[in-house]
Amino acid sequence: MKVRRSERLIDMTSYFLDHPHKLVSLTNFAKHYESAKSSISEDLSIIKRTFAQRGLGILETIPGAAGGARFIPSIGEKEAEKFVWEMAAELSQESRLLPGGYVYLSDLLGDPEVLRHIGRMIAREYIGRQIDAVMTVATKGVPIAQSVAYYLNIPFVIVRRDSKITEGSTVSVNYVSGSSERIEKMELSKRSLDRGSHVLIVDDFMKGGGTINGMRSMIEEFESEVVGVTVFAETSVNEGKRLVDDYTSILNVDNVNKSGGSIHVSAGNYLERVFANPKKEQVDLGAETNFFN
Amino acid sequence: MKVRRSERLIDMTSYFLDHPHKLVSLTNFAKHYESAKSSISEDLSIIKRTFAQRGLGILETIPGAAGGARFIPSIGEKEAEKFVWEMAAELSQESRLLPGGYVYLSDLLGDPEVLRHIGRMIAREYIGRQIDAVMTVATKGVPIAQSVAYYLNIPFVIVRRDSKITEGSTVSVNYVSGSSERIEKMELSKRSLDRGSHVLIVDDFMKGGGTINGMRSMIEEFESEVVGVTVFAETSVNEGKRLVDDYTSILNVDNVNKSGGSIHVSAGNYLERVFANPKKEQVDLGAETNFFN
Repeated sequence: MKVRRSERLIDMTSYFLDHPHKLVSLTNFAKHYESAKSSISEDLSIIKRTFAQRGLGILETIPGAAGGARFIPSIGEKEAEKFVWEMAAELSQESRLLPGGYVYLSDLLGDPEVLRHIGRMIAREYIGRQIDAVMTVATKGVPIAQSVAYYLNIPFVIVRRDSKITEGSTVSVNYVSGSSERIEKMELSKRSLDRGSHVLIVDDFMKGGGTINGMRSMIEEFESEVVGVTVFAETSVNEGKRLVDDYTSILNVDNVNKSGGSIHVSAGNYLERVFANPKKEQVDLGAETNFFN
Repeated sequence: MKVRRSERLIDMTSYFLDHPHKLVSLTNFAKHYESAKSSISEDLSIIKRTFAQRGLGILETIPGAAGGARFIPSIGEKEAEKFVWEMAAELSQESRLLPGGYVYLSDLLGDPEVLRHIGRMIAREYIGRQIDAVMTVATKGVPIAQSVAYYLNIPFVIVRRDSKITEGSTVSVNYVSGSSERIEKMELSKRSLDRGSHVLIVDDFMKGGGTINGMRSMIEEFESEVVGVTVFAETSVNEGKRLVDDYTSILNVDNVNKSGGSIHVSAGNYLERVFANPKKEQVDLGAETNFFN
């Protein structure tokens, strides 16, 4: 049964959004909708233009007989900026300050709207880079890893501080905790990562950077390569130095006054690294929608 | 600037998919696209019909001055069935069997395509029920809770077996582990769940049901209510009895031969409970698309 343009547009849009980075050939679309390739080709241009105009992402179209289209999720600069400053204000609330200068984040890392933004932002940062897996450490990093993996459509792997019998054989590494200078241990199931993978490291919070360094060692153990490191929030290190220097942070907890119960959170280096980098200009998405919120 | 129908359809579709369960008023759509309400109304019927025909979910339209539309994610029976049997075959592979009769699941629970299916299936099961939060226990349940929360667009909360200083004050409960009959302890951050919440419990694996029971006690401690319990896989209990009787399982590990290294996994009670229940017929979504895989 031939499918009308309006229905095709709705169906194709939802397919692209549900299957990021998956290439679908023009031939398959034409067969599926029993429509001419020329009509499908026109549909794709309309979708491509709309996605770009509204900051939803990039519809990459590949011409020729083996051609097709692939949806690359992204986020517009304005939407990313708005999210960063909303989060900074949210995290600056005194009620979030926990004993020891920790910040309560669990509600945000359990909020699908927040996670969708974080996922799209980190996905945007690595557009054009080959990534085979997202890595994080249990438990707080998991929601971030999952949302990035969702938009990159690649698996995520969870490194653990405690060994589990449901993981099978594991590889373990020792690392120095940046803040406490203690020696810690982390483990990853042997079969969860292939040798020679390109791995993106994400985490919720970076203090001394010890955990991130541990994951770097882990990736080396798997003869794999680190593509980049992005954390939701970093916090300034007062004593000792940071063990990681090349990383991206969405937020920066730049002042915690433990005795006075005050906290100040500002933007991390994300906006600067992603949007001020001239190499990234070419993927700029133009105008953006504010939608309905 | 007035927006053309084709662009509106693409934009509205992507907005609905990105904001499940969120009601958007006709007025807001009309303003946003600078289009007549009658045109928007027609757009919504086209989207509604296409979503239904292709098993993508339900576009609930509310008529009248205060009316609008809301997207309710779901999954068609055929797609759910196909997924269940694919997973059963995948889990029946001998290489997944770990010492002690455990099954290796981490790769599946780190695969976005698998998680999208699980999320949509569990979301479909609870269509029409009021749910305020999804609860699970760290670490393996987290990806499932997050994907369900994604499609229900509500927060998820993570109960932990180990206390964390970054959680603030916690409530703890003791529970009896169903398989080992040991007394265990689990904790949940006090501020992560409001009193009087309606909570959906999800987990990756259920053996004796002790962990699920622990979460039930936790929900009671928060003066809240359990809406339902759904697990990815259950396994038969040989000794002792199961502590939980009203639950849904997507898969059933019905035979593990530890010595011979063989394992057999079949469908759990999900398909029967969700699709064979006459009360659910009214939300049946009709024809479904096979898409391109």
